[in-house]
This record gives sequence, C-alpha cells and structure tokens, in this order.
Amino acid sequence: MDSINADITSAHVEAEELNGHIGEKVLIHGVIYKIREMSDFAFVLLQTKKNVLQCIYSKEYSQFALSGLKDNMAVVICGEVIKEERSRTGNEIRLISYEALSYPVSETPLVINNKEIICTLGSLLDNRPITLRNSRERAIFRIQAGICAGFRKFLSENGFTEIHSPKIVASGAEGGANIFDLEYFGKQAYLCQSPQFYKQIMVGVFERVYEIAPVFRAEKHDTSRHLNEYTSIDLEVGFIKNFYDLMQIETKMIIETCAYLKANYTEELALLKVTVPEFTEIPAIRFMEAKNMVSKTYGREITDFLDFDPEEEKLLCEIIKKKTGSDFVFVTHYRSLKRPFYTMDTPKDPEVTESYDLLFRGMEVTTGGQRIHDYNAQVAKMKERGMDIEAFSGYLMAHRYGLPPHGGMGTGLERFTAKLLGFQNVRLATLFPRDMNRLEP
Amino acid sequence: MDSINADITSAHVEAEELNGHIGEKVLIHGVIYKIREMSDFAFVLLQTKKNVLQCIYSKEYSQFALSGLKDNMAVVICGEVIKEERSRTGNEIRLISYEALSYPVSETPLVINNKEIICTLGSLLDNRPITLRNSRERAIFRIQAGICAGFRKFLSENGFTEIHSPKIVASGAEGGANIFDLEYFGKQAYLCQSPQFYKQIMVGVFERVYEIAPVFRAEKHDTSRHLNEYTSIDLEVGFIKNFYDLMQIETKMIIETCAYLKANYTEELALLKVTVPEFTEIPAIRFMEAKNMVSKTYGREITDFLDFDPEEEKLLCEIIKKKTGSDFVFVTHYRSLKRPFYTMDTPKDPEVTESYDLLFRGMEVTTGGQRIHDYNAQVAKMKERGMDIEAFSGYLMAHRYGLPPHGGMGTGLERFTAKLLGFQNVRLATLFPRDMNRLEP
Repeated sequence: MDSINADITSAHVEAEELNGHIGEKVLIHGVIYKIREMSDFAFVLLQTKKNVLQCIYSKEYSQFALSGLKDNMAVVICGEVIKEERSRTGNEIRLISYEALSYPVSETPLVINNKEIICTLGSLLDNRPITLRNSRERAIFRIQAGICAGFRKFLSENGFTEIHSPKIVASGAEGGANIFDLEYFGKQAYLCQSPQFYKQIMVGVFERVYEIAPVFRAEKHDTSRHLNEYTSIDLEVGFIKNFYDLMQIETKMIIETCAYLKANYTEELALLKVTVPEFTEIPAIRFMEAKNMVSKTYGREITDFLDFDPEEEKLLCEIIKKKTGSDFVFVTHYRSLKRPFYTMDTPKDPEVTESYDLLFRGMEVTTGGQRIHDYNAQVAKMKERGMDIEAFSGYLMAHRYGLPPHGGMGTGLERFTAKLLGFQNVRLATLFPRDMNRLEP
Repeated sequence: MDSINADITSAHVEAEELNGHIGEKVLIHGVIYKIREMSDFAFVLLQTKKNVLQCIYSKEYSQFALSGLKDNMAVVICGEVIKEERSRTGNEIRLISYEALSYPVSETPLVINNKEIICTLGSLLDNRPITLRNSRERAIFRIQAGICAGFRKFLSENGFTEIHSPKIVASGAEGGANIFDLEYFGKQAYLCQSPQFYKQIMVGVFERVYEIAPVFRAEKHDTSRHLNEYTSIDLEVGFIKNFYDLMQIETKMIIETCAYLKANYTEELALLKVTVPEFTEIPAIRFMEAKNMVSKTYGREITDFLDFDPEEEKLLCEIIKKKTGSDFVFVTHYRSLKRPFYTMDTPKDPEVTESYDLLFRGMEVTTGGQRIHDYNAQVAKMKERGMDIEAFSGYLMAHRYGLPPHGGMGTGLERFTAKLLGFQNVRLATLFPRDMNRLEP
C-alpha cells in the first residue's frame, strides 16, 4: 500500500515568482505562444497559467537549435532569469535548454498568436478550442472568472448562503413557450428557465441565498443579445422594506465587484483597454417616464407600451449617460402584464409592479423585484391569470407556511461581461455559446 | 429621476452583532422558530440568517399578548439585549414589542421545530420547502455551502481559473446509455454528463481550470448512492508528471477544506455532531490488490474483475480504517475496459489505467486520472473502441493543436457532504433531489 501526502513539491518555478529568482537558473513549464526571430537572436514567448513570459534565444547561451521549438508545443525550459524593466513581468529568461512535453500535429488553421484574431465571428466560435488561446480571448474569460469571484465575495460577506437547485424541473418559472422539454423516466420534464421558485423557497430557510448556475431559454431569437443557455447570477433577499433595498444591494455589489476587478485583474483589463465604471450611485427612472423621454428626445412614436425594444434601451442609456454620466440606469415599475405572476404589484397602482431592470451601456443585464410573499395574494393572482394552482403546490408550500417579505434579482454573467468589455455581441463573452444554430463545440 | 446609492442602512440589528449591544434596546428581524411556554414566562426562539436567538417573553416587560405570536411568522421584534452565558449566542433578548410582517395560513403538516423531524424519507423530501427550515436540515446545507467555499478557496489560491461550460451538448463525455436527450431546434442534443471535454480543452487555455456545476445522468439506478442530477466539482490540471500529482492535489484540497469548515462552521458541525477527519496523508492501493484484500479478509469470491460493488467499497473502507485509521482511500489503476476513452493507460501495463477513485467512509466520491494528451494516441484509442472520430472533432481540436500532459478529477458535492455528515443516503445531502421517481418539489 502506498500513501499520498499533501507536500506538493515541484522542480519548476511558478511564473509569478520569477522576480524572486533574478540571476538564477530555473525550470519553468508552459506552452510556446510565439517565436519572433530577430537578426541575431529570437524572442520566444512562453504562455504560463497567468502570464506570457519573454524568453530570449541566442546562440551565445542557448544550447539547442531554435528550429526545434514550434508554436503550441508544451515545454519545460531551463533558463537564467534576468531583470528587465521593459518586459511586462519585470524580467526575461535567457533560454539554455528545453524539454518538449507534447507536440501539436499541425499548425493552427487560424493565426491565433497575433494581437487580435482576424476572422469572422462564426470562425472564431467554430474554432473556440484554439482561438481561446489568444491572449485577448484568455483575458476576457479571466475577467469573467473575476466577475464571479467579485460577486461571490460580496455575497458571502453580506450573509448570503450559496445553494444548488435542480435544473430538471416539473414546471417553468417564467411561463411562456420559451422552455426546453425532455422525457424524464416516462414523465414530462423541463429545463430550468430560472431558479426563481427554489430561491424563494430558500429565503424561507436562509433569509439570503444566491446561486450562480446555468439557465435555459428555448427562445427563437437569433440576435446579438440572446443565448439559449447562459450563466445566471441569482440572489434572493428576505426582510426587505421594498424593492429599493434590492437596487441598493445591487448598486453596492457592482461597485465592489468593479473594485475587486481593478485590484486583481489589472493586466487583463489593460490588455483589453477596458474602462471599469467608477460610480457611487445609479440613476433610477420609471418605465413610462423612460419611454416618454426616449420618444421625446428622438422623436420616436411609442408603439409598445409594455416593454422596450433593444433600440430604445440603447437610446435611453445614451440619454442617461449624457445627463448624469452614468453607464448604468435602473428602470422601475414595469407593467404588471409584462412581469411574471410572482411579481408584486405596486399597491397604489396595480397596473405596474415593484420591479426593475438594470440597463448597462445599452443592454438589460439584470431583472429584479419584490415578490408576493402572502399565500392568499399569490393564489389570487395565479387564479386571475388562469394558472393551475395544483401544479405549483411545492412552490406554494413556502408561502402557505410563511415567507418574509422578500425580493431578488438575476443577472446574466455573459451580458454583464460583454457590456463591461464593450462588446456588442454577447457571444464574444461566452466560452462555448449555444444559440439556435450553434450546438458545438 | 431618482438615484440609488449603496448606503445600505437598517434600523435592524444583525443577530451576529448582538454582543456589541448588551443592555440596549434593539430591533431584530427573523422568523418565529418555536415558542416554549414555562410557568410564568416563555422562550421564543427566533430564526435569523445564521443563528436561532433566545428571546424571553414575560409579563414583567413584554407589552403584548403571547397568543399573538405563531410559529413561522415573520416579525420584527423590539427587545433588550441581556448577557446570558448559558445561551449559545452568549445573549438573550427580553421581548418588549413586535410587529408581524407576514403570516402563515396554517400550521405545518409535520412538526419541523423539534431537534429532528420524525417522518419517512419520502415525506421529508416531499415537504422540502418546510422541512429545510428545521435547524438540523439548515445546518446540512450551510455546511454544503462551506464545502464549496472551501474547495473554491483552495482552487483560486492554487492558480485555477473558474469556467462555465455548456450543459446542452452534441455528444456525451462518458458514453453509454445514461444520457438524457432533448430536441434542440430540430437537432438531437443531450444533457451534459460531465464537463470533461470542456475542461480538457480549457487546460490548453488556462493550464488549471475548475467548474462547480450540475451534471445529469439518466441512470436507471434507484439506490441510496445515485442521483439523476448532481453538483459536480470538476477540475483539470496541466503539466502533471503523472496521476500521483492529482492525488496529492486532492489530498491537500480536502485537508484545507476540512480546516476551513472547522474554522467557519463550528456551530453547524457541533449541532450535527460531525467529526471532521484530521489527516496528513491518504493511503493508496491498486484496484486488484484491493479486490484481493476484501476477498481474503471477508471470504468473498471475486465475480466482477472490472469494478467494485457498493458492498466491496464499504468493506474495503472498513479494512483501511482498521489498518491505517484513515477515512479515505485512493484506489488506483482501474481496468482500462472500465474507464472512458480519454483515460491514459499505464505504459508498462496497458490493461490498467493511470486513474483512481477516492473512497470516503465506504463510498466513491471522486473519479480522477491522467488523460491522453497526444492527438495520435487519442485517435488510435477511439478507433480501437469503434468511435466516430468526426463526431468529436471539436474536442480533438485541442489535442491536434497541442495539449500539455494533464489530468483531473470530478467530485460529487452531495456524496461528499453525505459522507462527511455520516449519512447513508445521498438524498439527505441534496436540497431538491432528482431520482427516477422524484421530479418535485
């Protein structure tokens, strides 16, 4: 019998620690990102977990033929660390020797190691397994991981408990036809459109809960804003006074996430030339007021009194940006007819709801609002909408046996990332997008 | 236009801060958990986000009728904080007045506020929205959130980047019939059995990646160990020397997660009387050696030479516990025939693989191993198994254009939680289990 301990030792030095090894010979592992031959030496860029290291090949000290190195080879290099202030990492490595650990079988069909990959969106996504290796592409998804980490940090510091709710469900939370169905051991089942029911149930257990997980929408919209599967940052909060509490929580969460990114993802943000918004408050405007403002400013006739079209969202954000300097705007009091059955109507004006959307640089990124917590009020609203109460008995059990006043929100991770990075198409901020025409890779 | 800032102020005091308010009158919100009437006073237990607070009702100072308070009511209480060392929170609250925020419509059909809920497993799960409110049930899922947080802390401190891969996929990672299918805009699609392909692809991008997300298995096993949807903690590591590196990483990760739980979930662990394992190493034994050991020790004939049955896993763990004191054991070198096509065979003995399972208190909780990184070797093994190479072209693009030597593992969150807490049935550690007979709530 063997025994495995936790003393992970490696002869290899981590790229992040190189400045502690100036003047020393070290072993470092990584992948050859790019070789740039100069007249009497060559730059060999080595991709490591976080950084691209600048290595120098020169016949003066390199004991091998440069032609042995190829892009995308996994190698361990042996080299001497030199202080070099012009390099982004503050050092460079004089290559002495190397060992190849694996070989690509051919060159990539696209050039992936220039600043940007020059190709169509379709080609970029078709070739995701290799296009993601580009430094800019990597930076996008490093920042996406940072956004999740920032949100989670805020949530755990503010008393939220993480939950894991099922994605195969017996009934949809959002209603409508936008739901994928599947056969589940002889029963009809669906893919979760939102963890709505479960997070409300869990408010009755933990008061504050969150979940970051995939949701599925069978929407037949093939636009730059829609995905059929996306990652939803969902949270729900008990004991709110009203839905303004939720907008305050979201404001604070985004401010802290932006600060977290600036502190921990400096290089990635610089590479993508991202301006992280700095702000202390977010303007809020009622839905109808916003509608009229856009109509008046741009001379557009209002045809849909229930919702914005994408163009209106963009124009509204432009107006708000000009008026207040804010990249964000809360739109409140959406029409009751447009909001799901669990949304609380505004007591003094039941045509509208205690709900909001957050728009960010022209696109809706969050939907939130106060929910109905009273059992009788919830059942009455469901009956009004002709819903089958019995089909929701599990969900309604929470209301029946007492739920505090509560509300919550859901933010699309990919949309938030896209808007932060200034992308028009949400697919650019999705590792492996799923849309009507794309199921692979 | 309004403006929302981040200055979240509340007149209510957080339960965790009460010891800073001894002698003061405070407002606290929560849910009535239990009322225990004594001869001339009453204990009113108030559930808050993390703690149950001990409040005292007495005609001496309480300015309301006790009969107004009901279990499961959401309230704001006004009371005076008194130092009380016999109370678990170090204080108690003398109730002065209260305001009801919401009312249950009836009493719960099960008694949920005793130490344990006395009912069948079926009834416990059917009534999840309310049975989860029991203090012991809450503690289970608080600890589960802590396990995730502990794993994530280790992973982010050790250079792993979090990813989000799609759950609707074009082909299964594990093979076999255990896969749910669905129609996806006229195409045949499946629910992801494992993020295997994506995490291997992403090793080519970030070197070290992880994902904590749902996976789906259409297995027709209705046992205490199986769920048809579970939360998988998946990670993948580039530049490993061999699969012993993976077992070292897992050993360290579990040691640190256990320490994290002990530091941050003291009360929950005490309530459930959990012994968190303390260890510095985990024994490792080859599959056939383990088979023979169980056979010899318990006089059992070996009928299946490819895998353990659940009874054998239990017996093996008993032997290991007796011999070494360890609650964990790595079983290595499973037969090639039993492992998926991406598993690396042992070079000197290709009948077996560079793979392992981790057993914890009688049950497999992790499967891991080294993967084939060489394109030609991977294609050869797939052809040997009669697989359609073309159907995996997206996945194989990673190998074709170079992948470092790598491997990884997947741990079932619910199984890990169940075994840590000493449960026989994995459903007890699942918020809303999905099995062959259960699709609700």
